[in-house]
Amino acid sequence: MNHPTALAPDDLLQALRWRYATKAFDSTRKIPAATWAALEESLVLSPSSFGLQPYRFLVIEDPTMRRELLPHTWGQKQVVDASHFVVLAGRTQVTEAEIDTFLHLTATTRGMEVAKLAGYRGMMTGSLLSEGFQPKVPHWAECQTYIALGTLLSAAALLRVDACPIEGFLPAEYDRLLGLTAQGLTATVCCALGYRAGSDKHATAPKVRHPKSSLVQRV
Amino acid sequence: MNHPTALAPDDLLQALRWRYATKAFDSTRKIPAATWAALEESLVLSPSSFGLQPYRFLVIEDPTMRRELLPHTWGQKQVVDASHFVVLAGRTQVTEAEIDTFLHLTATTRGMEVAKLAGYRGMMTGSLLSEGFQPKVPHWAECQTYIALGTLLSAAALLRVDACPIEGFLPAEYDRLLGLTAQGLTATVCCALGYRAGSDKHATAPKVRHPKSSLVQRV
Repeated sequence: MNHPTALAPDDLLQALRWRYATKAFDSTRKIPAATWAALEESLVLSPSSFGLQPYRFLVIEDPTMRRELLPHTWGQKQVVDASHFVVLAGRTQVTEAEIDTFLHLTATTRGMEVAKLAGYRGMMTGSLLSEGFQPKVPHWAECQTYIALGTLLSAAALLRVDACPIEGFLPAEYDRLLGLTAQGLTATVCCALGYRAGSDKHATAPKVRHPKSSLVQRV
Repeated sequence: MNHPTALAPDDLLQALRWRYATKAFDSTRKIPAATWAALEESLVLSPSSFGLQPYRFLVIEDPTMRRELLPHTWGQKQVVDASHFVVLAGRTQVTEAEIDTFLHLTATTRGMEVAKLAGYRGMMTGSLLSEGFQPKVPHWAECQTYIALGTLLSAAALLRVDACPIEGFLPAEYDRLLGLTAQGLTATVCCALGYRAGSDKHATAPKVRHPKSSLVQRV
């Protein structure tokens, strides 16, 4: 009954169990280009509210910038040691222009008249541009970046790339160093990716989870 | 160089491209038990801040409850038609007792003395129980449920189970009907899972994404 190309459930769970928040990365190992390209694509393909993608993903390649971010990340060495370091940034505002850009992209991608999207446009503007929603935009956009984080962490586990999500950083300092504010963005969460160091004792520590019977409730 | 059991990048991307927000589910098709068990386990294995799992996942099996939730979900038929319907709920507060329960679980799981976790405890209580953070708890917990949502959507795609994340619902009504408030929880986001109906024209519509060069910035 399953789709012929479906992954076996056990293969999925094996990957998710292999994953852990990597504390020490092997700074000599780099993620191969093809693998990294797939991880970036997993971010691009991540779902978002209305499909609007109210975020940007910054891949910090410059070692100097990584060193500058380090003290604003409580000195967590993953920032400089990991093969790749991604800053996820959410929109702080949504404008009518942004919605129309997206609708034109939709029309072009799907070979249709943008006028046919009038109903969808009304739904989006009515919801996102309402006075009541405007103060909630940063929160809403932040949530969307967390879907992308979940997508990225799952993708990395499946490709057997180690990762560490990082919430412990100073967004105001990140925004300043990366020039995010002027772009209508704010750093929401980060992710270091690469390969675990042999010395990372966290790699072999059993995963701690509440019992499924407590986490999952049947109604 | 890759881990021997790593998924091929193309297989990952094929699954993520196959995924779309399913608007119409085939109400006659149920997700097989083994597949569903793996999807629940993907929720359990999802990463969270400090590993604290400040959430619960409600699987709404009762058809009457599904029908009651429908009008509070703008009548989106996925709520009643999908094989499974999950409500993700975040903690509205974090208590010292909850942190200690987690630390005891950690000590038991890892066969260590809980006293050895004193440093970790101090970090968690200092951060999560601080006066400044208390009002941010629901927001922080909500973000963690969105990681779980991203994990679940990726897992479903890999197992070729269709899904639709749903943000358009009335949390206050969900909380009331599901008795969440008394548990210190609030509904944050939902997800319908099952199999697309043959009639769902969204299944074949090309995915709309901003160019990677715009979504992903190199610094």
